[in-house]
Amino acid sequence: MKKISILGSTGSIGTQTLDVVRENRDKFEVVAISANSSVDLLLEQIKEFKPKYVAVYNENSAMRLKEMIPSDIKIEVLSGMEGLKTISSLDEIDVLLTAIVGMIGLVPTLCAIRKGITIALANKETLVTAGSLVMSEARKYNVDILPVDSEHSAIFQCLNGEKTREIEKLILTASGGPFRGKKEKELLNITKNEALKHPNWSMGRKISIDSSTLMNKGLEVIEAKWLFNVDQSQIDVVVHPQSIVHSMVQFIDSSVMAQMGCPDMKLPIQYALSYPDRIVNDFERLDFSKWSTLTFEKPDLETFPCLQLAYDCLKMEGTYSAVLNSANEELVNEFLEDKIGFYDIPYYIEKTLEAHSSISEPTLEEILEVDRWTREFVKKSIK
Amino acid sequence: MKKISILGSTGSIGTQTLDVVRENRDKFEVVAISANSSVDLLLEQIKEFKPKYVAVYNENSAMRLKEMIPSDIKIEVLSGMEGLKTISSLDEIDVLLTAIVGMIGLVPTLCAIRKGITIALANKETLVTAGSLVMSEARKYNVDILPVDSEHSAIFQCLNGEKTREIEKLILTASGGPFRGKKEKELLNITKNEALKHPNWSMGRKISIDSSTLMNKGLEVIEAKWLFNVDQSQIDVVVHPQSIVHSMVQFIDSSVMAQMGCPDMKLPIQYALSYPDRIVNDFERLDFSKWSTLTFEKPDLETFPCLQLAYDCLKMEGTYSAVLNSANEELVNEFLEDKIGFYDIPYYIEKTLEAHSSISEPTLEEILEVDRWTREFVKKSIK
Repeated sequence: MKKISILGSTGSIGTQTLDVVRENRDKFEVVAISANSSVDLLLEQIKEFKPKYVAVYNENSAMRLKEMIPSDIKIEVLSGMEGLKTISSLDEIDVLLTAIVGMIGLVPTLCAIRKGITIALANKETLVTAGSLVMSEARKYNVDILPVDSEHSAIFQCLNGEKTREIEKLILTASGGPFRGKKEKELLNITKNEALKHPNWSMGRKISIDSSTLMNKGLEVIEAKWLFNVDQSQIDVVVHPQSIVHSMVQFIDSSVMAQMGCPDMKLPIQYALSYPDRIVNDFERLDFSKWSTLTFEKPDLETFPCLQLAYDCLKMEGTYSAVLNSANEELVNEFLEDKIGFYDIPYYIEKTLEAHSSISEPTLEEILEVDRWTREFVKKSIK
Repeated sequence: MKKISILGSTGSIGTQTLDVVRENRDKFEVVAISANSSVDLLLEQIKEFKPKYVAVYNENSAMRLKEMIPSDIKIEVLSGMEGLKTISSLDEIDVLLTAIVGMIGLVPTLCAIRKGITIALANKETLVTAGSLVMSEARKYNVDILPVDSEHSAIFQCLNGEKTREIEKLILTASGGPFRGKKEKELLNITKNEALKHPNWSMGRKISIDSSTLMNKGLEVIEAKWLFNVDQSQIDVVVHPQSIVHSMVQFIDSSVMAQMGCPDMKLPIQYALSYPDRIVNDFERLDFSKWSTLTFEKPDLETFPCLQLAYDCLKMEGTYSAVLNSANEELVNEFLEDKIGFYDIPYYIEKTLEAHSSISEPTLEEILEVDRWTREFVKKSIK
């Protein structure tokens, strides 16, 4: 029985993680769950999965939840960053699934690593902002970082039984997002609703916008660099609109291994939880009479400059990737509030990167400070 | 340094094996080579690779070769089946690469297995005719059977680091051969030259005809059953005209692993020799701007009945697969000599299968007897 703590149990990945647990009650036990403020859903999850701990980041929401929990349910209600840190480093858990969105996941993840707890990582920001720090801690504490993203899970599966020194390159596939094939002049005035329409995956709002700008793929390139310890020149992106090939690895002997499947986040979630085993499920099977044509094309870096910015940040090293991520987070929020246009996202990211003084091998405090600086700089810039 | 003996060094797989060795002289040493009768090429190979032994199946050719070898070259020349058996079971070899075509490879392969020598298997007939016997001997002597076929090598690579009990199904890809998309009435009068034109792979004549009838894929289905110990119901064939996805494995959790690459037999040959390592090479890399569309379709079992016959033989067990193989071998020869038509191949195979009394768990002697009976029956039938 694997004991699991979930950072962000009410979001898209969190609820799908609980779907996986629901089908495998004999294999997984949920010890702790958490959310920012969605107390109604948390209460439902508490009733169904009976965790011992719940952490609510927002203090007021934590108070509300406390009052809502029926008296016959025994559970410890925690709050704030301390709450997240506590449920991430419980003695009794085997895996921390970190599905929380944003920088907020970083500190709890580091706490878990320092307790030797396996990380099932769905939070992009952890490695994008602090890849060097997190991976060196993971090596120090001999902790597995198991990717939950479909692309990184695919690469992780392609590397099963293989030697990392025999990797020639990683090939991340990208759906291309809702604007694939369009040019900049057609996209200048698009709205958030158009950008939110992802062709293949059902995802949260932030990640859907990132998918439409290809920033999502840029962040994944950065994550891949840290997860698989390769050079940025060894990471290719290929646009594959059907999202059937989830990613590939090319080895030094020219052999390419690919992991494929119907687009369903539950598969990489389940794999991270069941690893190194696979578990029978009733997920849709890949049907080649339905998917009879798979296509591949080069990403259009001119129309989607965010992907190029991510490569540039990786090359420049230091805290540039952290700036890229935080600036993007702020700008996507502004875009979702109709305050800026689609191309303002890469425009202001670039301005922010230009103004940044990078720190090499940053500490946690320095990373958090870069995050604060970036958000402030972005807010001032777009005024 | 891995020491290699090659059964069938002058054929398509044999010469490509030597190409691989030529590029990796620091890793592989050729201790013995053999052929049926191509003494001129054997002599060239002897001069270049300086093996200690050469076996020539045809006794007269062996005599001729002996006379041709310059006196300053020290080599032992062997002949006949005894010669093949000797070079297959030398104390000093690590791997026997069996690339000989036809039933003739069976006995030497069994000799090697009983000496604990790893088999790199490119000879289809070994497992098709004697899968049960060969695999039980391999288990008994704890010998690895490493597939050299591109499809089985792909599956073998997909199973790297995976558990065979977690296989849901194997998905063998087929190019569809030169007649893909055609119907029976269009194929009734095709000639051997049309059948020999394989779209993607450069191969020997026998295997090219087998590819045009889809018998090649049928034999591979039978081989896959024995190599990977799955039920015939767990082996699917999907037509993939580009031959880029070399085959796939679907696991119990719905994940599909695929091995891809440019069509080049040197890759599976090298992999079988280098396994469990991969070796850097300059083989063409998969370029998705060149291979931008990959397609998949169902095999047409009505137009290509040989594939269905293979499934039927697997289902009926016993010596039916041996009959299928020997009958096919005879009939392809007749077709190549313009003595029978394209659809006479499945027609006479079916007639032979109907006349056959199957033996379950056959011994080597029984398999060889079934082979003799089959060839005789086929010859009598087509008179």
